[in-house]
Amino acid sequence: MTDSTFDRATAVSAAAGAADRAVFAIEVDPDWTIGDKPNGGYLLATLARAAIATVGSIEGPDHPHPVAATAHYVASPPLGPAEAHLEVLRRGRRMSQARARLIRDDGSPCVEATFALGRHDPATEPWWSDVAVPDLPPRDDCVRLPGVAPTGVALPIMQHVDVRLDPAVMGFASGQPSGAGELRGWLTFADGRPPDPLALLFAVDAFPPATFDLAMSGWVPTLELTVYVRGVPAPGPLLVRQRAGLVEAGLVDEVCHVWDSRGRLVAQATQLAGIRVGETPSPART
Amino acid sequence: MTDSTFDRATAVSAAAGAADRAVFAIEVDPDWTIGDKPNGGYLLATLARAAIATVGSIEGPDHPHPVAATAHYVASPPLGPAEAHLEVLRRGRRMSQARARLIRDDGSPCVEATFALGRHDPATEPWWSDVAVPDLPPRDDCVRLPGVAPTGVALPIMQHVDVRLDPAVMGFASGQPSGAGELRGWLTFADGRPPDPLALLFAVDAFPPATFDLAMSGWVPTLELTVYVRGVPAPGPLLVRQRAGLVEAGLVDEVCHVWDSRGRLVAQATQLAGIRVGETPSPART
Repeated sequence: MTDSTFDRATAVSAAAGAADRAVFAIEVDPDWTIGDKPNGGYLLATLARAAIATVGSIEGPDHPHPVAATAHYVASPPLGPAEAHLEVLRRGRRMSQARARLIRDDGSPCVEATFALGRHDPATEPWWSDVAVPDLPPRDDCVRLPGVAPTGVALPIMQHVDVRLDPAVMGFASGQPSGAGELRGWLTFADGRPPDPLALLFAVDAFPPATFDLAMSGWVPTLELTVYVRGVPAPGPLLVRQRAGLVEAGLVDEVCHVWDSRGRLVAQATQLAGIRVGETPSPART
Repeated sequence: MTDSTFDRATAVSAAAGAADRAVFAIEVDPDWTIGDKPNGGYLLATLARAAIATVGSIEGPDHPHPVAATAHYVASPPLGPAEAHLEVLRRGRRMSQARARLIRDDGSPCVEATFALGRHDPATEPWWSDVAVPDLPPRDDCVRLPGVAPTGVALPIMQHVDVRLDPAVMGFASGQPSGAGELRGWLTFADGRPPDPLALLFAVDAFPPATFDLAMSGWVPTLELTVYVRGVPAPGPLLVRQRAGLVEAGLVDEVCHVWDSRGRLVAQATQLAGIRVGETPSPART
C-alpha cells in the first residue's frame, strides 16, 4: 500500500465481476470533503482508478491513463462504504472507453462517469497552442488556503492538498473580490506525492469556485465536470487557473487549466455548477 | 409530424420499456453526415430527445430542455436503423438526469451520453459574464459553406444547415489558414426551423473543425463532446465561434460558444477530437 493519502483515499478493491463488467468496493473518505460533501474531482479520480483496473483486467491494450473523463453528479454520496459499478464499452488500440457509476447502499446512483483511457507519451511536444501560461508569483509568495472557508465551512480536504493562491486574487478572503472571476495559484499534495495523470482529475476541481472572486456564496455544487488530460505532468507543483464564464439562472460554468512545472498544459476542464447569487448585486464587469 | 428536417432526422419512437428504462428505435439519417459519418451533435440531439421523452414518460417534473449533455463517441454508427437505450438516473425538482446509449444492430455501443435536463426560463438575465460577443460582419456578407469540404469530402449535412463564415476566417478554402485557430459565423437551419434548446446540441458541433484555420487535415473525429445549454435562444440566426486550444499527440480540444440573435450566450461546448497534423509544419503562433 502506498503512503500517499490521495492514493489511499482513491483506492478501489475488486469485489465481483467479469472482464467487461465489474463491481468495486470503495470508501468515500471523510477527509476529502468540503464541509461534509465529498469533492467531485476526488470522486472522479476514484472512479477512474476502477475504470483503468477494469479495462486492464484482461490481456489487451495497456491504457493506464485517463484521456477524457466526464461526470454527472446526481446526488452527493454519504461518507463511508459505497460501490463503483464498471462497464467496458470498448477496448481499442489507441483508446478504450468505460462507464462507471458510484452507487450508495440503497442502490441509487450518485455519480455517473464515462472515461476514454489511453497512454500518454511523456515525450510529446505541443504542435500548436492558443493557451498561454499565466504569470504567477513564486509559490513561496502565494497564500496557502486554510482549513476553513471564508463562509465558515470546514475544509478537511486542505489537510491533504496544499493550494497557494496568487495574493492578487485573495480579495475574497477580506470580502473584496476583484470582480474578474478568476482564481490562480499552485497546487501540490501536502504529503509530497508527485502529480500524475490520475491526480489531474482531482487537480481541476481542487480550487475554491472562481465565483469567490465575484461574490461570496454558499456551497457551489458541481453538476457536471469534464476533464481532458493532455499529458504526463512533470514532478513539481501544478499551476492551476480557474475562471468563471457566465452566471445566470442559478448556474455558473467554470473553465480550469493546469500546467506542470515545465509550463506544459497538462489538463483542461469545464464544469457546470449551481450557485445562489440572486440577491447579491452583480459585479462591475457585468 | 413536423416539416423540419432536423426534427425528422432526430425523431425517436418508443419501442419498449418502463418508466425508468426504455428502448427507442432511431434512424441514423444519411443526410446528417460528413462523408459517410454521422455528425456528433446530430447524434447527441437525437439521444437528448429520447432522454427527454423517458424522463417525461411518467407524472413528475417537467424537464423538456437539455442543461448539460456529454457524449463519448465510441464507434461511428452505421447509417440506418439503430437503437437508443435510456435509463433515468434521477428525477429531481429542478433537474433530472438520464443516461443514453446508441447501439448498432450487433449490440455494440456507438455513443454513450449522459444528460442533465431541466426547464430554461426564457426571461432570465445574465448576472455576470466574462464572454463577449464577437464582432462579425452581417450574415449577408458572410460565405456560405458548400456541400463539399476543401479536402474533397462530401458534406450532405450542408443541405440542411446554412453555415456562413466570416470572410476573415475563410483562408483555409484557398490553402491559406490564418493560424489563429478560430472559425466564426452564422448558423441557421436551411428550412428556417427556429433554434431551440435541443437544436443547440447540434449547433455546437456543426462548424468545420477550428483546426482548418491552422492546417488542412482529414476527418477530425470527435471523441468527447460536452455541451452546456444556458438559455432559450431567440428566433433568428445563431452566432457561433469555434476555437482550437492545444494540438498535441494527435488530439485537439475545441471550445464553442453560441449566441442568439439578441446577443445572449445560449450554449457553450468543449470537445476533444483526433487529428493528424504530425507531418505538417506547425503554424507561426506555436
